[in-house]
Amino acid sequence: MSAIEQLKSKLDELKNELELHKTTKASRDKIEKMSAEVVDSNPYSRLMALQRMGIVKDYERIRDKSVAIVGVGGVGSVTADMLTRCGVGKLILFDYDKVELANMNRLFFTPDQAGLSKVAAAANTLNFINPDVEIHSHNYNITTVDSFDTFLDTIRTGGRQPGTPVDLVLSCVDNFEARMAINTACNELGLNWFESGVSENAVSGHIQFIRPGDTACFACAPPLVVAENIDEKTLKREGVCAASLPTTMGIVAGMLVQNTLKYLLNFGEVSDYLGYNALIDFFPKMSLKPNPNCDDRHCIRQQQEFKSRPKEEKEVVSQEAEGPVHEENEWGIELVGATEEEPLPPPTTSETGLKLAYEAPEKDDQAAAASSQPPGADVSLEDLMAQMKSI
Amino acid sequence: MSAIEQLKSKLDELKNELELHKTTKASRDKIEKMSAEVVDSNPYSRLMALQRMGIVKDYERIRDKSVAIVGVGGVGSVTADMLTRCGVGKLILFDYDKVELANMNRLFFTPDQAGLSKVAAAANTLNFINPDVEIHSHNYNITTVDSFDTFLDTIRTGGRQPGTPVDLVLSCVDNFEARMAINTACNELGLNWFESGVSENAVSGHIQFIRPGDTACFACAPPLVVAENIDEKTLKREGVCAASLPTTMGIVAGMLVQNTLKYLLNFGEVSDYLGYNALIDFFPKMSLKPNPNCDDRHCIRQQQEFKSRPKEEKEVVSQEAEGPVHEENEWGIELVGATEEEPLPPPTTSETGLKLAYEAPEKDDQAAAASSQPPGADVSLEDLMAQMKSI
Repeated sequence: MSAIEQLKSKLDELKNELELHKTTKASRDKIEKMSAEVVDSNPYSRLMALQRMGIVKDYERIRDKSVAIVGVGGVGSVTADMLTRCGVGKLILFDYDKVELANMNRLFFTPDQAGLSKVAAAANTLNFINPDVEIHSHNYNITTVDSFDTFLDTIRTGGRQPGTPVDLVLSCVDNFEARMAINTACNELGLNWFESGVSENAVSGHIQFIRPGDTACFACAPPLVVAENIDEKTLKREGVCAASLPTTMGIVAGMLVQNTLKYLLNFGEVSDYLGYNALIDFFPKMSLKPNPNCDDRHCIRQQQEFKSRPKEEKEVVSQEAEGPVHEENEWGIELVGATEEEPLPPPTTSETGLKLAYEAPEKDDQAAAASSQPPGADVSLEDLMAQMKSI
Repeated sequence: MSAIEQLKSKLDELKNELELHKTTKASRDKIEKMSAEVVDSNPYSRLMALQRMGIVKDYERIRDKSVAIVGVGGVGSVTADMLTRCGVGKLILFDYDKVELANMNRLFFTPDQAGLSKVAAAANTLNFINPDVEIHSHNYNITTVDSFDTFLDTIRTGGRQPGTPVDLVLSCVDNFEARMAINTACNELGLNWFESGVSENAVSGHIQFIRPGDTACFACAPPLVVAENIDEKTLKREGVCAASLPTTMGIVAGMLVQNTLKYLLNFGEVSDYLGYNALIDFFPKMSLKPNPNCDDRHCIRQQQEFKSRPKEEKEVVSQEAEGPVHEENEWGIELVGATEEEPLPPPTTSETGLKLAYEAPEKDDQAAAASSQPPGADVSLEDLMAQMKSI
């Protein structure tokens, strides 16, 4: 071999190695079947141990599950990370935003990803962390008319078995319109979903489990939740931005995925609503009944179908034995202690840290007024009802 | 230039590029001063917004703070990640374990890091995420005699100003001995620290704020906490392992760092003890007074010094106005509602999900019996006192 040939061969070798570094990082091989074997090389040993500990009956069922995550920001990216490490079967990610250095104060994304689309950057990291999880990316805004139809179709047919719907939709978005779009889609399809949100001042958040027909949907009542009421893009145009913390978003993502796991793998009690007030470490729980006069016709249909379905015994007891807490309660909203061992304190104290956070978009003035309320202010249920009626 | 020279030049170019990919990944430049400017390229805009939102007075003080993290596993690594993204001044990491694929069911580490020491892998990732944070790694077991002295000396002089102590120590370890070592060191130095832990069955955890002399130290009473009572290495030798979940560990890390931020930046209320029961989404809070007969002589000294120090008004009121909840309470342990707005339910219900989790190492049989108790079992304060006295 001549010197030139040798150099050319060396050059090709280096080119290949460089290409390898550029396109893929060394990860691990796919694993055909989850094993409970306790060896350092088994990424599933600590999860399969949930069976030996008596927490989960058949952990491997997680591989049959498909979850859609709408919004891959501070909460959604950590949610995807957790579900990927738990070995969920399939994740479908929706976002239309790009990674920026301004996102680096929250977990998951890294500075080198600035400029990439959030779904592409996330899919790359998630595939690397766990190649056993099937990751699908959708880089568009689900609230536009065309995209909404694609979104609806994707969650309707996105299950692990061809043609079946996803097992759960997780909303990790930061604006009212996107939440309403998810609500509309899930009411139409009868799909269960979790709402989540974090307040503009970064020190409170919540998750809410919405089961069409069974619980209040997002249109049943202006949501009794703490969350951002203006999206980041709008805020940035005005030269301001919402505060955020990796702690609050990590905790909300943790609450969201923990309840997702309890629901998908059937252990523990899934919370209907779980709030988080970081300033005083207060975690309110409650249940919200659907509004029989909801504007969403699919919600009304789901309510009728839910009523005609045979109930699990526990649900009948907890929902019929307890009357409304307040006499004037035309919205049918009810605060229910989630367990008999841990009853909620009386309504006026249990609502500490809750405020009416979402307003219909045309009510900008009211929204600004509501968001300027100090966090942790006492708001009575009556006040909230009055505010809701005024909308 | 001849063909050979061209090829050689091209070869050198590729070699350099490859070296760059192998050794460093593209990150960002250091930032001299935190800015509140709302531009996509500012990694601190969302944190500085905490000032505009009225949550934190002077966020940039975070740069003056030094935090030691002992244990860089499921909780410790996420804790370090969050503090790094928050822009803390200095982090000192202690661990003697290696990254394994079996750790991949928790956040932070990636499969390519398997085989690296946890502190080296963590320091590499953290430097990449935020080059403004000063990261120090200590790759040894703090419980050996020699290493303990180095550990003590490191936290005694590890502050941002030369010769000053760290501002806070965070315990994220998984065994009794390491917790006792941290307790001994912090009692001797009068350093405030947070204990943290996650149960073997992965569905509960806690954080506990220990201020020598002011609150119960780790030796004052067998800890009234939920946490692993055998370390992972011991378990693995027996062919079993503790279960773990990224959710529970992420939430415990979130609670830990949120309370760290509240303490370091002086906002909100720092919880003395915050528990988490994942099965029912229950978060108990309480306060523990120090034991006047504690075995640790430095604890006794700190108690005497604390009594002679002038008190903040609020502390005097809350600690002197409320007597012990139970009549037979020789340990002086007291359940205190953390806020007036959110009083704790009566003791028998508030302890749902709590059990005596740590036992002195020689009591293996009792430990096994205690850990086989079903999670969420009701344990009364009287039962716990009886168990403590029997040790």
